Amino acid sequence: MPCKNLHPRNSNQPNLPSDNNLVWHNGLITRTDRARLNRHASAVLWFTGLPGAGKSTLAHAVEKELFKRGIHAYVLDGDNVRHGLNADLDFQRQHRRENLRRVVEVAKLFADAGIIVISAFISPYAADREFARQRLAEDAFFEIFVKCSLEECMHRDPKGHYARARKGLIQNYTGISAPYEAPENPDLIIDTQLTTLERSTQQILDFLERHGLFKL
Amino acid sequence: MPCKNLHPRNSNQPNLPSDNNLVWHNGLITRTDRARLNRHASAVLWFTGLPGAGKSTLAHAVEKELFKRGIHAYVLDGDNVRHGLNADLDFQRQHRRENLRRVVEVAKLFADAGIIVISAFISPYAADREFARQRLAEDAFFEIFVKCSLEECMHRDPKGHYARARKGLIQNYTGISAPYEAPENPDLIIDTQLTTLERSTQQILDFLERHGLFKL
Repeated sequence: MPCKNLHPRNSNQPNLPSDNNLVWHNGLITRTDRARLNRHASAVLWFTGLPGAGKSTLAHAVEKELFKRGIHAYVLDGDNVRHGLNADLDFQRQHRRENLRRVVEVAKLFADAGIIVISAFISPYAADREFARQRLAEDAFFEIFVKCSLEECMHRDPKGHYARARKGLIQNYTGISAPYEAPENPDLIIDTQLTTLERSTQQILDFLERHGLFKL
Repeated sequence: MPCKNLHPRNSNQPNLPSDNNLVWHNGLITRTDRARLNRHASAVLWFTGLPGAGKSTLAHAVEKELFKRGIHAYVLDGDNVRHGLNADLDFQRQHRRENLRRVVEVAKLFADAGIIVISAFISPYAADREFARQRLAEDAFFEIFVKCSLEECMHRDPKGHYARARKGLIQNYTGISAPYEAPENPDLIIDTQLTTLERSTQQILDFLERHGLFKL
């Protein structure tokens, strides 16, 4: 399969009303240029899964393995982004949507800059993930379901959040007091109950290779 | 001068209340690692200047020259970011502040990812630029004043915005109906009335070299 994301920068341009006083400034460096410099294409790996499923751990493991191969990758992490860009947002439905919207736009900028983005967000709503897929349609977008049963996630409870949510000390907590809509047709499923971290990481590298990301 | 930005990723961590249910996830790849892979340090070049002063043109010229040298750079452009990440914001004072705040956070992520960020925003308020400097203090932040007189900018008027603003068709337009607070102590001044684009670009490359960004 050919790389999907080797479009010039102006593929980023959405439809806009003509009177908004904004002028799109095309860059002089295209994605093809950046891919040639980096010797790999860019992409967005959109991890989704319950809290505790292993998204961040897996994301950072994949980033490290890619780095060892000289590949430019960067993790956009739910918690970390909420310390900065999205520090003004909480976990209500409307704010979750805005949280995801901004992350999608940042992922688009990173992909445009030639980087393999690994976004590790719960992203519990199918509608928000569909928005991400549509907005990143030209950016080699892959939805990766980091799968783990709610029972196992509650058992792991690495941050103690499930316990606090069950006591009512955290509101709108995914899996307890807010829904998680599992993907119906993800591009890849990683079952962290059945697969070791090393094997899961390798599965993702193999997936990227199958999709031609490294063959430049 | 040594590079200022070779800090591990967790230097990104702000002070936070202890009960916000967010856990900082340290990456496995440090900035030093990324700088070694890229063979250059990251930085944030914060361009500021009136509309029409030449910020975007200069930013893209610098990006291109850096690219030709194999250096990973990326322009964050006022107009372009407002098509995506900040499409929900207008030009009122409060929205300008939020616009800048988000761009600062995105610049921080890009710098963390090892990239030389060239941000080309009017950023008319000294207080907002001071916020940028503080927030990016560990990221080799340089304020670059793209200087040009209001008269010359109005004469150039590349997008026809000054003319529309003077007719009252655009509100809150910097230089006409909103203030521009020129930097008092920028790290570098590029006077686009006195200097050609080629020479301006070279001045910035020389500046980066003097600050040790490429010596890795």
